[in-house]
Amino acid sequence: MAAAPVWSVDPRTGKQREQVGTEATAGEVDAAVRAAHAAREPLADRTVRAALLRAAAGQLDAASEEIIVTADAETALGRPRLTGELARTQAQLRAFADEIEDGAYLGITINHKDADATPPCPDLRRYKIPLGVVAVYAASNFPLAFSVPGGDTASALAAGCPVVVKAHPDHPATSELTGAALRRAAAEVGLPEEVLSVVHGFDAGVELVKHPLVSAVGFTGSVRGGRALFDAATARPTPIPFHGELGSLNPVVVTGAAAAERAEEIGEGLAGSMTMGTGQFCTKPGFVLAPQGEAGDRMLEALRVAVSKAAQGPLLDSRMREAFLAGVGARTELEGVEAPVLAGAGDDEQSVGAGFLTVPAEKLGQPQYELLLEECFGPVTVVARYQDDDEVVSALSRLPGNLTATLHLGAAEAAGDGGQGARLLATLTPLAGRVLVNGWPTGVAVAPAQHHGGPYPATTSTSTSVGATAIERWLRPVAYQDAPEALLPPELRDANPLGLPRRVDGRREN
Amino acid sequence: MAAAPVWSVDPRTGKQREQVGTEATAGEVDAAVRAAHAAREPLADRTVRAALLRAAAGQLDAASEEIIVTADAETALGRPRLTGELARTQAQLRAFADEIEDGAYLGITINHKDADATPPCPDLRRYKIPLGVVAVYAASNFPLAFSVPGGDTASALAAGCPVVVKAHPDHPATSELTGAALRRAAAEVGLPEEVLSVVHGFDAGVELVKHPLVSAVGFTGSVRGGRALFDAATARPTPIPFHGELGSLNPVVVTGAAAAERAEEIGEGLAGSMTMGTGQFCTKPGFVLAPQGEAGDRMLEALRVAVSKAAQGPLLDSRMREAFLAGVGARTELEGVEAPVLAGAGDDEQSVGAGFLTVPAEKLGQPQYELLLEECFGPVTVVARYQDDDEVVSALSRLPGNLTATLHLGAAEAAGDGGQGARLLATLTPLAGRVLVNGWPTGVAVAPAQHHGGPYPATTSTSTSVGATAIERWLRPVAYQDAPEALLPPELRDANPLGLPRRVDGRREN
Repeated sequence: MAAAPVWSVDPRTGKQREQVGTEATAGEVDAAVRAAHAAREPLADRTVRAALLRAAAGQLDAASEEIIVTADAETALGRPRLTGELARTQAQLRAFADEIEDGAYLGITINHKDADATPPCPDLRRYKIPLGVVAVYAASNFPLAFSVPGGDTASALAAGCPVVVKAHPDHPATSELTGAALRRAAAEVGLPEEVLSVVHGFDAGVELVKHPLVSAVGFTGSVRGGRALFDAATARPTPIPFHGELGSLNPVVVTGAAAAERAEEIGEGLAGSMTMGTGQFCTKPGFVLAPQGEAGDRMLEALRVAVSKAAQGPLLDSRMREAFLAGVGARTELEGVEAPVLAGAGDDEQSVGAGFLTVPAEKLGQPQYELLLEECFGPVTVVARYQDDDEVVSALSRLPGNLTATLHLGAAEAAGDGGQGARLLATLTPLAGRVLVNGWPTGVAVAPAQHHGGPYPATTSTSTSVGATAIERWLRPVAYQDAPEALLPPELRDANPLGLPRRVDGRREN
Repeated sequence: MAAAPVWSVDPRTGKQREQVGTEATAGEVDAAVRAAHAAREPLADRTVRAALLRAAAGQLDAASEEIIVTADAETALGRPRLTGELARTQAQLRAFADEIEDGAYLGITINHKDADATPPCPDLRRYKIPLGVVAVYAASNFPLAFSVPGGDTASALAAGCPVVVKAHPDHPATSELTGAALRRAAAEVGLPEEVLSVVHGFDAGVELVKHPLVSAVGFTGSVRGGRALFDAATARPTPIPFHGELGSLNPVVVTGAAAAERAEEIGEGLAGSMTMGTGQFCTKPGFVLAPQGEAGDRMLEALRVAVSKAAQGPLLDSRMREAFLAGVGARTELEGVEAPVLAGAGDDEQSVGAGFLTVPAEKLGQPQYELLLEECFGPVTVVARYQDDDEVVSALSRLPGNLTATLHLGAAEAAGDGGQGARLLATLTPLAGRVLVNGWPTGVAVAPAQHHGGPYPATTSTSTSVGATAIERWLRPVAYQDAPEALLPPELRDANPLGLPRRVDGRREN
């Protein structure tokens, strides 16, 4: 049987652009994983890894024009967005280089022998070591920052784990280009190219998660696909950590005071956030609690005007477009749901237009309205109008886990007067991994304090896929007991020859 | 149907001592979890939690005589061992009180707004919050330190998570006594007693892991039981973290030089470690690679003499005794396996005697010998005699994951001469979470640098169940974006009113 071809498709036309390669056979997946496994030792050197990450940023820079043109042709996300995304991807690679040079991520802890402790304590020295080969399942909606050269790959390589990426079928040519850039970076710093491989094909993805030499998984995608792979990872004879980002509704609560003070600003801001990238952000605000009454009406009018003006555009692929149209249709059919701007098919066969739905919040207790509390990928959001605080609390209690939750407060509430702002912040905190005040969740800054994750189904673990601590996913601790100084890795020697931050007998050093 | 009785049994006689209570019905499990869930808010105060942990240590102290007598009657582990275990349990509770007062576990990271970053970075402040109700499945072999008042409970309460313990059926009376002590401690510091509940019964354990309000699981026990609960935890509609310690072979490698220099010391040390607690430690050395030849022979002779003298004793229950006798029997039947001291039934109906088996290491490549690479709970170990380094490497490559791996080196090797010691340490590191040199793995010191965990099946996650970082299992990060100072929790305010260690714009504070 001939290998299945992998096609790059132009979502603006639905036409095939070029054949990129073929889907990986089970044998090819096995070869990629084995080669990655063999590359662990050369990757063990932290200094070389930092050089690799910086070289990768440089190689992406050198190939930036071809990468951006290709990514735009495959995803229709547009040149400005992809230019920004590439810069972010490079910054992310460099940030992980800084992070591993800093060394705090190693969690070095030393307890010298203490014969007087109860029970007596031997010499113990602990740090973190890489888990082994990491399988990365790339996202559709960020062909760079959450794909082959993205945060999962960058953090895994930073940790010392070779990576095999299952490319997303919506941008196979971009995946090959960026994969080649990373492999050139490996060669540039004297590492085997096999520290990173790219495989294509659904079956290859299934093989990959089951491979005995794969030690952990990073995934960004749908609840359905992510859960299937999570189930496979946990059902293995040796289960492995599965760090998946699956889906998020990203609720927004607008207080009466906020609406009264900033109705137009909030309506316009919401329109901008929910239509950004044609509504294909994992942090798109998909559910908004807005007050009934005049101020809420003004906010919705501003939202209506702004959404009406939003440009039509294609989604990442035709399957997503069909799911979007079906999802909007099913939601619109619910009694009491209105569509001030009806999201739906655009003027050509590939495009869609943005819209939003409204519903009285009191309806949300009925089972058939649960659909409104599920993510609908694409440029649509649901605005539930509430009468009082009880309806807000009741609606929030029905929500699944989220990447983000957002609060729009009036000036006095934000200043802490009366405690309403703090109470609402406390109510939103259990729902999400990032809680925003008076902002919009789209756009995920790369920073040590970032957390991009949240209660299931936002993520399948308590980890983040963005920011410095994303590296923790690919490490495990090991403690050495009474190992002679001469045999210890330099990170754990008394003299601290690498000058790393650590905790020694309770004291923090560096 | 009447509720099933829960009996306390004396393992020295096999007779029922007393009825402790009844197995929890599904309704009772539900009530315990709901009450625990309702206790989250009072438990949110870090200062009160530290007081709770210290009060718990005090309450255990006040009830120590009754606890030790009861635990000995139910487990036959003996008064000296249980006295030490209770002291360790109290020390553990106090250590977590210190740890949460220190506050480093919160991982506080602050990035102030940076408009010049690419992309611009908003104000982000991250720390860790408790996950919610934790289900703890107690171990059989440590009725205090890994049971109701043990490390899982202590670390979960320290994190701010209420706990429902599924008691181990081998010490229900001890579980009730220690549970009552912890509930008195809660009342003493003004917390609801429902921050900790104890339930009994196999079915109750199954209900518990499936309960929607249970947020995470800690487990210590067998591979079979642990894997079944792990599978249930990951198959839930909302999967939850399952931190299980399942089983470990704890390999030991004795080099030719070590045997030549310290044959008798090593043989006697091994005998002491493998028979400690009648071989019922999760860190019992269950597989030893010893050199063929004269020095190895001397080591085995010392082992033989010492093991022959080891006192007989009952195992924790009759089921374990049967499994031990069957396990030893099946291993002894393998061709080439010898039993210089045959482990087996003791002089009375409840006891067993310690023993050990030998096998040529070259046999281990054959499938039927895989049985020798599985844990056999009780006082027996397998010594594989090797001819050369290749046989050592080959045998180690067949091992599953372990809690510990131990290396016995000669003086020159330990000093680093020739690099053999460092090479062997690097070979053992992938196998375990704790790697020892010239010591014995039984005895797990409670210290910040401790790691009690390891590759599957040693643990089902990358976490530890002993030492300061055990608290990380019950937390998840949350980041606040652009939240006004007045609304932020005190931990994240600029002024740092609580004086906590944190990382602010890349600088470490405190």
